[in-house]
Amino acid sequence: MNTITAIAKTPEPPYYAVIFTSVRTEDGNGYEKMSDEMVKIGFNQPGFLGAESVRDEKGVGITVSYWDSLAAIENWKNHPRHLEAQRLGQEMWYKSFATRVCKVERLGLF
Amino acid sequence: MNTITAIAKTPEPPYYAVIFTSVRTEDGNGYEKMSDEMVKIGFNQPGFLGAESVRDEKGVGITVSYWDSLAAIENWKNHPRHLEAQRLGQEMWYKSFATRVCKVERLGLF
Repeated sequence: MNTITAIAKTPEPPYYAVIFTSVRTEDGNGYEKMSDEMVKIGFNQPGFLGAESVRDEKGVGITVSYWDSLAAIENWKNHPRHLEAQRLGQEMWYKSFATRVCKVERLGLF
Repeated sequence: MNTITAIAKTPEPPYYAVIFTSVRTEDGNGYEKMSDEMVKIGFNQPGFLGAESVRDEKGVGITVSYWDSLAAIENWKNHPRHLEAQRLGQEMWYKSFATRVCKVERLGLF
């Protein structure tokens, strides 16, 4: 399924998560198109398990993508179009961002 | 600092993250007040390292809180006021949610 659902249907832990927190600039040039392309390509990468993404009206966003291995994350990180997206993101689209690579150990029993 | 900043200033990994993804109901009764209280109390818990939180206009939200240990997460999970917030959240404020407990292993070199 090539759409971001509110809550990703992930398997039982353990698996991996990449938490990407960002603040957008006012520069929207090419952003939506690239964002759509990243969803389209990213969702078809080997080891991709799902993603969740929210951005508020102030331009603060959190995207979490889930993966079955660190190798799958590394592979996606180095995809040529994703490298281009990362470059443009740093240059134009994001004021600031952080990327954290995590191992999901368990579901919270909330 | 008792406010949520866009991008949390966390130490070098490893540390822990709780990813809480949720979809709000239309029922706003008491939600903002409790949310403010959770920030106020949560930020003063032992082992708390920071938090990031975004909700969009469709009511989809992602909150990530960072902790120095699983024990700190467990402790906060069982705080009496937080237990009450969890109960009300399930009953009234959230259509659906997922909580994932993760170990942040490294920063992404994006």
